[in-house]
Amino acid sequence: MSLLVVGSIAFDSVETPTERRDNVIGGSATYFSYAASYFTKVNLVGVVGGDWPDAHTQLLEDRNVDTAGLVKVDSEKTFNWTGKYLPNMNDRETLDVNLNVFGTFDPVLPESYKSTPYVFLANGMPAIQMRVLDQVESPKLVVADTMDLWINEHRDSLLELLKRIDGLVLNDSEAKLLTGHENLISAAKAVLDLGVSFVVLKKGEHGALYVSADDMFVLPAYPTEAVKDPTGAGDSFAGGMMGYLASVDDTSAASIRRALVYGTLVASYNVEDFSLDKMREIEKSDLDIRFERFKSAVNFT
Amino acid sequence: MSLLVVGSIAFDSVETPTERRDNVIGGSATYFSYAASYFTKVNLVGVVGGDWPDAHTQLLEDRNVDTAGLVKVDSEKTFNWTGKYLPNMNDRETLDVNLNVFGTFDPVLPESYKSTPYVFLANGMPAIQMRVLDQVESPKLVVADTMDLWINEHRDSLLELLKRIDGLVLNDSEAKLLTGHENLISAAKAVLDLGVSFVVLKKGEHGALYVSADDMFVLPAYPTEAVKDPTGAGDSFAGGMMGYLASVDDTSAASIRRALVYGTLVASYNVEDFSLDKMREIEKSDLDIRFERFKSAVNFT
Repeated sequence: MSLLVVGSIAFDSVETPTERRDNVIGGSATYFSYAASYFTKVNLVGVVGGDWPDAHTQLLEDRNVDTAGLVKVDSEKTFNWTGKYLPNMNDRETLDVNLNVFGTFDPVLPESYKSTPYVFLANGMPAIQMRVLDQVESPKLVVADTMDLWINEHRDSLLELLKRIDGLVLNDSEAKLLTGHENLISAAKAVLDLGVSFVVLKKGEHGALYVSADDMFVLPAYPTEAVKDPTGAGDSFAGGMMGYLASVDDTSAASIRRALVYGTLVASYNVEDFSLDKMREIEKSDLDIRFERFKSAVNFT
Repeated sequence: MSLLVVGSIAFDSVETPTERRDNVIGGSATYFSYAASYFTKVNLVGVVGGDWPDAHTQLLEDRNVDTAGLVKVDSEKTFNWTGKYLPNMNDRETLDVNLNVFGTFDPVLPESYKSTPYVFLANGMPAIQMRVLDQVESPKLVVADTMDLWINEHRDSLLELLKRIDGLVLNDSEAKLLTGHENLISAAKAVLDLGVSFVVLKKGEHGALYVSADDMFVLPAYPTEAVKDPTGAGDSFAGGMMGYLASVDDTSAASIRRALVYGTLVASYNVEDFSLDKMREIEKSDLDIRFERFKSAVNFT
């Protein structure tokens, strides 16, 4: 099955304790699309400025990402973000953000996208996320991401969104902020009470937690020493997860667990280099090899 | 097989965001002994003051803990610690510490303890931990805990200890401090380079990581909402782990994995109430039930 994603496309400038890269490909929808492309066809909706090279679009096209929904506004500039990671490689500071053309983004779905069965609303203003939902026709599964800004400043609209989607993916700190619960299990359950069927809490280097009404799944992050740039880890996690689910067209508990594992594994590759660089080097078969390694690193009898 | 533990015995006064308890049973060797007692006979070495009630000693005796090595110095007071947990229930402040009789503790093993095959050196001054080692006769497995104080101020002596033991159990932040590595996998591997065969990094609510020359095992914490007092979580984790290993008398990778899981589960019960209160209510069969639940919460195929 195909998978729709709506979100940001950006140029990132990233500084880590040892290296820096300027104006590399970034953005939630970009990371998500690339990560999902190992599993299924992706319909991408986003906006870029005149400074976005056609070669970047081609990079996505080459990976089975449909860019019919990618709008280029020649008179404006692409969204850009500049950030710096602290020595622990888990916390970061945003040094500069210019929304540019993304600031007035009002996504319009091409006709060919409207019946996409699997939908991911990457982090964005809840009102915009809902406008996307208004355009899709009876999707099978809708999952959204969000962030502290919307929880703090657009709470009502976010709560409205939660009643219209199946699953929410968010960071542990955001779940605490949204629900007021310090304990993560309690926070996850409180998110369910807001109307979603399941919630995935991302804990960065500490893994993830999945909670639904009748299942709970905890998984650590893939143990890796090779962390070069964590940017896009959450989006590539979501991309791997949703891509797998769309590919098997099954949302049973067993499939969701495997989906979370694949999300973890794509993210584990993504952080091994800047931008999409590591993901560009690997294939689905690499993920399958790491799947078995991960199983053996967490398995006990 | 029996298991020797040498460490602190204390009165704790603990404040959480919602409750407080004064002068309850605490101390690393106490938590460890009680946790290990579900699995095997424990030989306890420690010291208390005249204010330590015989009923507390009896509580341990009733759980298959041999207290022949428990010295009572009537003229002094028992070690006491006062601490306060922050709202996240993971971080804490020490408000007051009085070493009292523990300050001059020089453990002497009763003859009957000297051939104990499994040995745990709870957190303490490395020189004292080594004096215990001098007294044991060809143990099968020696594991130690340590803390930031010894890493910072007794590093040489700690490094000497590491060459004489099989395994080290420590918090993630302590592993970073000891090795200078921010990445936890790198930190764990660097601890191996210091001379131990395996290392267990405790990550509190985020679980644990086990690394040896030929195995790596990552496990999340048992997902629980019922955290009332985290005091003793690390010591009860170590107690469950070592107790299980001594009971099966096997240090294969499969047994070590099960041991870490049992450690996680005893700790998950321990944090459900103050002091030993929750552990006093449960039996080995409760741990076995939670073992299956945990397996189903982390399992994927």
